[in-house]
Amino acid sequence: MSNLAAPVLDPHADIVDLTAAIVDIDSVSGNERALADAVEQALREHAPHLQVLRDGDTVIARTDRGLARRVLLAGHLDTVPLAGNLPSERRTREGREELWGRGTVDMKGGVAVFLKLAVEADAAPTDLTWIFYDHEEVAAADNALTRIAAERPEHLEADFAILGEPTSAGVEGGCKGTMKLEVTARGVAAHSARDWVGDNAIHRLAPVLERLDAYQARRAVIDGLEFRECLNAVAISGGIAGNVIPDRASAIINYRFAPDTTVEQAEAHVREVLSGLDLEIEVTDAAGGALPGLDAEAARGFLAALGEDVPVAAKQGWTDVARFSALGTPAVNFGPGDPLLAHADDEHVPLEDLRTSLEALRRFLVPGA
Amino acid sequence: MSNLAAPVLDPHADIVDLTAAIVDIDSVSGNERALADAVEQALREHAPHLQVLRDGDTVIARTDRGLARRVLLAGHLDTVPLAGNLPSERRTREGREELWGRGTVDMKGGVAVFLKLAVEADAAPTDLTWIFYDHEEVAAADNALTRIAAERPEHLEADFAILGEPTSAGVEGGCKGTMKLEVTARGVAAHSARDWVGDNAIHRLAPVLERLDAYQARRAVIDGLEFRECLNAVAISGGIAGNVIPDRASAIINYRFAPDTTVEQAEAHVREVLSGLDLEIEVTDAAGGALPGLDAEAARGFLAALGEDVPVAAKQGWTDVARFSALGTPAVNFGPGDPLLAHADDEHVPLEDLRTSLEALRRFLVPGA
Repeated sequence: MSNLAAPVLDPHADIVDLTAAIVDIDSVSGNERALADAVEQALREHAPHLQVLRDGDTVIARTDRGLARRVLLAGHLDTVPLAGNLPSERRTREGREELWGRGTVDMKGGVAVFLKLAVEADAAPTDLTWIFYDHEEVAAADNALTRIAAERPEHLEADFAILGEPTSAGVEGGCKGTMKLEVTARGVAAHSARDWVGDNAIHRLAPVLERLDAYQARRAVIDGLEFRECLNAVAISGGIAGNVIPDRASAIINYRFAPDTTVEQAEAHVREVLSGLDLEIEVTDAAGGALPGLDAEAARGFLAALGEDVPVAAKQGWTDVARFSALGTPAVNFGPGDPLLAHADDEHVPLEDLRTSLEALRRFLVPGA
Repeated sequence: MSNLAAPVLDPHADIVDLTAAIVDIDSVSGNERALADAVEQALREHAPHLQVLRDGDTVIARTDRGLARRVLLAGHLDTVPLAGNLPSERRTREGREELWGRGTVDMKGGVAVFLKLAVEADAAPTDLTWIFYDHEEVAAADNALTRIAAERPEHLEADFAILGEPTSAGVEGGCKGTMKLEVTARGVAAHSARDWVGDNAIHRLAPVLERLDAYQARRAVIDGLEFRECLNAVAISGGIAGNVIPDRASAIINYRFAPDTTVEQAEAHVREVLSGLDLEIEVTDAAGGALPGLDAEAARGFLAALGEDVPVAAKQGWTDVARFSALGTPAVNFGPGDPLLAHADDEHVPLEDLRTSLEALRRFLVPGA
């Protein structure tokens, strides 16, 4: 019988066992239903203080105790595709205990911590909204937060938001923005034995690469956190045939900009970097960053509860905190696992990270814990 | 009945009609048999002074009159793929009569001139070898001359060779060599929001493009002919994903070098141009050029017969003359049609070119003509 039953999650289990149970429910983007069902069932069964809503494969649970402030905690249920790395496996390496498998870092450790605390935190100092959502690892338009923002925006309202993305159990405030631009050089095609009647478009990209290579990226310090900007060609292509001078060549440039910079300012900056060159420049993708907002009242309470041992840094990669920032809600990333291992074939989380994250967040949400 | 019969070529027909008849026998590389059959039949029927051999879809016809010198005339029967440009069509534009269609330039006009003269030239001042061959427009290994050189090398022996490639009815001596090199830069992959832990391989190509763009190509004057060298990136590629600093990027460089330069010298030169850069450089394709050899006795006789009105220039593109040069045989290109229209969708030859080429070559091969 048990093999046929839907998986059940026990939020009272040890954090490592709970994380492994969540990891072992395969939930590659688009296939989140079984995990969403298990999360919904666990909350309905074990957290009577929460109002639980189901929206597609997103589960929203909230208190409405009429408190002065509301903190929102969100974690995505989906993972990138498997790499032969399920079911999860415990390993001990050089004396360190680890849990290996897809999602252990990004971000089922964070989901496990949130699920345990959603059940425990029935007397938190603020009202709480918990969001376990689908489709984060795919196009932004498919991200469940896009749908929630459009259809149930009241559930995204909060004074402070915590996203459970991996931060090695530290706090990573805000995030940088990201922009992609396609840069195209035009030339004149010719036979490669008679190049003087043509104009090589690939060669026209020389000053583009030169400027990118020489570029000194800005380091912006905001709320005491350093955001390091990055400007890179992430793709380049050109060429028609081995005996033809190509009349077109292009590069994709990715600009990661500090959150004190708007999308419009970011575009103007890239155009300035490339000024004077005969190029077509088109923005193909853009999303603003998120300011850390660590001086907000609710953020200060969170940091104080965590204590001085928890490191605080800037989040360099773009995350959904930017969505909250765009709504005017300060937001941080906080979760177990090394972000550099997210999406990696050898994705694994130290068990210590799971325990540390749980305890730190518990100090904030469960008074007297 | 006539629709089912194999096509027949009449070498006594007017040069324009004969060219059109040859063009109208579709002979895209690999499909040369019908045209080879027609050429073989025309020679056997109308040129009793020639010994005719058939080798695959190549037809070799020769005199063996014991004369002091031998001139070889070669033309390929195949064309690049059609572009909706068959059957051929006569057009008059701005008072100029033209024949349009695939192969009119490259090089069925030359084949028609050669076929007419193979029949007429039964008393030429030298022994003659005529080669009508297959698979020129494809990989060098498939070129019939590769097979003939390996299996019947005696048929390529001559004191002077004329290749019927398009030259607008002028003489284009020799040809440049060509070499392709793949240049690869290695870096270290990283997330594009944390580029400082990586090394962008695309950016490593900046100095490659810069040097190619700034390159001052040599102009080598050999036997009074100017060969202009060319050094170009003909392809470039790199990139893994929009959020990844790529660890590999590569460019294909094509070097067209003057025929006074060996393949080894050419490779050394490109490596010198790129010296000091951290790159992997691999030669993927190379073929030496051909010296014009216009001071050879047989070449001087040819030029004298053509007269001073026929322009003489360097051949910039690589052609099969290089094969003859490699065998120690001076070789020139001589044929109707503008080489810039070879392979073009609007391929067409001025009728005047057909007539001029025929008359000029006839002055050399048919004494008293």
